[in-house]
Amino acid sequence: MNSFRFPYTSVYSHNIWLRDHCRCPKCFHPATKQRLLDTFEIPTDIAPLHIEAKVEGLEVTWPSQDPHVSLYPWSWLQRHSYDPSLSGKDASQEKVLWGSTIQKSPPTVAYEEVMAKDDQGLFKWLSNVDRFGFSFVSGVPETPEATEALSERIGFIRETQYGRFWEITSDLAKGDTAYTTLALGAHTDNTYFTDPCGLQLFHLLSHTGGTGGATLLVDGFYVANIMKELHPEAYDLLSRIPVPAHAAGESSALYRPSPPSGYPVLGHDAFTGELTQVRWNNDDRSVMSHLTSDLVEKWYDAIRTWNKCLTSPDSQYWVQLQPGTAVVVDNHRVLHGRSAFDGRRRMCGAYIGVDEYRSKLAVLSEKFAPDPVLVATEKIPLSTANGRSIWNAAL
Amino acid sequence: MNSFRFPYTSVYSHNIWLRDHCRCPKCFHPATKQRLLDTFEIPTDIAPLHIEAKVEGLEVTWPSQDPHVSLYPWSWLQRHSYDPSLSGKDASQEKVLWGSTIQKSPPTVAYEEVMAKDDQGLFKWLSNVDRFGFSFVSGVPETPEATEALSERIGFIRETQYGRFWEITSDLAKGDTAYTTLALGAHTDNTYFTDPCGLQLFHLLSHTGGTGGATLLVDGFYVANIMKELHPEAYDLLSRIPVPAHAAGESSALYRPSPPSGYPVLGHDAFTGELTQVRWNNDDRSVMSHLTSDLVEKWYDAIRTWNKCLTSPDSQYWVQLQPGTAVVVDNHRVLHGRSAFDGRRRMCGAYIGVDEYRSKLAVLSEKFAPDPVLVATEKIPLSTANGRSIWNAAL
Repeated sequence: MNSFRFPYTSVYSHNIWLRDHCRCPKCFHPATKQRLLDTFEIPTDIAPLHIEAKVEGLEVTWPSQDPHVSLYPWSWLQRHSYDPSLSGKDASQEKVLWGSTIQKSPPTVAYEEVMAKDDQGLFKWLSNVDRFGFSFVSGVPETPEATEALSERIGFIRETQYGRFWEITSDLAKGDTAYTTLALGAHTDNTYFTDPCGLQLFHLLSHTGGTGGATLLVDGFYVANIMKELHPEAYDLLSRIPVPAHAAGESSALYRPSPPSGYPVLGHDAFTGELTQVRWNNDDRSVMSHLTSDLVEKWYDAIRTWNKCLTSPDSQYWVQLQPGTAVVVDNHRVLHGRSAFDGRRRMCGAYIGVDEYRSKLAVLSEKFAPDPVLVATEKIPLSTANGRSIWNAAL
Repeated sequence: MNSFRFPYTSVYSHNIWLRDHCRCPKCFHPATKQRLLDTFEIPTDIAPLHIEAKVEGLEVTWPSQDPHVSLYPWSWLQRHSYDPSLSGKDASQEKVLWGSTIQKSPPTVAYEEVMAKDDQGLFKWLSNVDRFGFSFVSGVPETPEATEALSERIGFIRETQYGRFWEITSDLAKGDTAYTTLALGAHTDNTYFTDPCGLQLFHLLSHTGGTGGATLLVDGFYVANIMKELHPEAYDLLSRIPVPAHAAGESSALYRPSPPSGYPVLGHDAFTGELTQVRWNNDDRSVMSHLTSDLVEKWYDAIRTWNKCLTSPDSQYWVQLQPGTAVVVDNHRVLHGRSAFDGRRRMCGAYIGVDEYRSKLAVLSEKFAPDPVLVATEKIPLSTANGRSIWNAAL
């Protein structure tokens, strides 16, 4: 075990861990950011020949044919310390949990800004989504083409059984109630996918000859937070019991997640314990054949409580969309729905994968909101190759 | 609680569960296969007015303004019974675990068969993949176009940062060691995605002016099985500890899974406990900052053991691919690699999502290998709408 002293604490790490995380160009490909070192060739009893605290970081010399020198920047060591863990969470922005009062000033950004080449407006838009779970875009030309171009600012569009960029009208074209005039309660999309779409963008192009069709948004993280406080047992069940789901309205497709038992309503990061995903569509739920007998009534009580919190007026943000305003929703956090309508309503939109969205946000953050570790390691030789620091928090 | 007698056992179920799973056309949309019933309006103390065992199933009459009648086919009740659980697993084919001896008769199907309109060859191909985790296709025309058409027999191609249908040569075009001439150990692709691609199809179009580049396939389920027998503690650690990963070789993208702590090497169905996924690419692994101190050495020992089993000659199937033979690999089960090479090697291929692949296999199974429940419920009125039985095991 090695110990390093930070201003207020000491940190310990194992020799095998340090050796495995060497980022010299022989051990870590500076351009591809992939490990070159053969982890399995490290002797189990490896020990440093020499350790030295330098200004820029901890320098460790390892025994080998030619002595091998590794440098670990201080800020990087602190970020990744595990004994004790000094920063379990990512340095992401604080999330703003919201209820119905969000209607007073919902996060909005202008189309022109988002489309500007300097990417600052795009960063603002995606930062809104990161903080609030959704954001409007105002001033969007009322065409599918402009809406598609807006979607593609984030990343490539994710193709599904509904196509790539889609238009929906109320013709039941896709064997799904989304393609009707029915009211839809607050839900997330694609509970029947292994990886539900990360973002959903939609834009009402026109609504003629009828009324209704207001849009409902509910912050699932806000509601989950209330559940956790007031109904911890129900919260626990929703976090543990996998829920199977299916999309089976067309004879040519039969979707369900892998593994088929599905995922719990509330998903958490296995390490940080942080809530990371809400999956909820009671209409697409399959047979609950895997509840143990003692949990059946408890689980039904838990979803009843969840539904009650979701449908509370305090949680619901209702908005009548107008042509020219698109909205993007984090489908792993914010639930959406609509009221029934009549007349002809033309809606277009697209899905974007959670990985594409997160990738774009990470790339823009490097530029517009650099992480303290990157700033601290900027001047260390060989830190940056191919436009990216090897000390980036994601690596 | 209700009790039904099957030939050798009794089965119990709760009133709320039965009511929630009513599949009459008022409660379950026969075409979209979505729940229409409002689960949350069911009184918590609901109890049947009348229960009757009919030939085709259990008929339950519920109190409501107009008495409401539900029918649950016997075979369906048995399939979904939870007290006791009579069939926890899906009625999928038995998986064949294999080691190096698979070389004697690797699963193969002919291109012509797969492309035939009656879909029987396609079913054979995907059944091979389901059983063995891979299958060759022989007699493929040596062009990207024919290979793309072959991929699209399964479903739409999944777009990634590498494009849709791709060709790789050794030019490091994509900031990844796949685009070099280096040897690559057995790995699964996309460990840095939330949902790694389900299938990878590849086809060597040509290799001129050099040698090497043999393909390595390893059945991850076979190796995991050995691990579970011989090294149960290591198996347990690989099943529990999430492993972060990244793809960061291009400045325009920075991928990592959601949640960022990642997923364990061995993924299991939360309900059945069945092994469902192998995720393993040590080169793309990010910093292990979330191991508790007491687990660091144990975890490194576990991956060392895993690597030893993976690289054992007994596990490895080496094959020199030839133009005209494509291979599709289940990327959630079978690891692939290659030996180093020189000369000019042109490889093309595509990713297909696990959901697309499983959907196609489920649709073909309805036709060519109908499930016993479907056969037993065929003659019940209103069972089939829109080409699919409402008693399908996936719903």
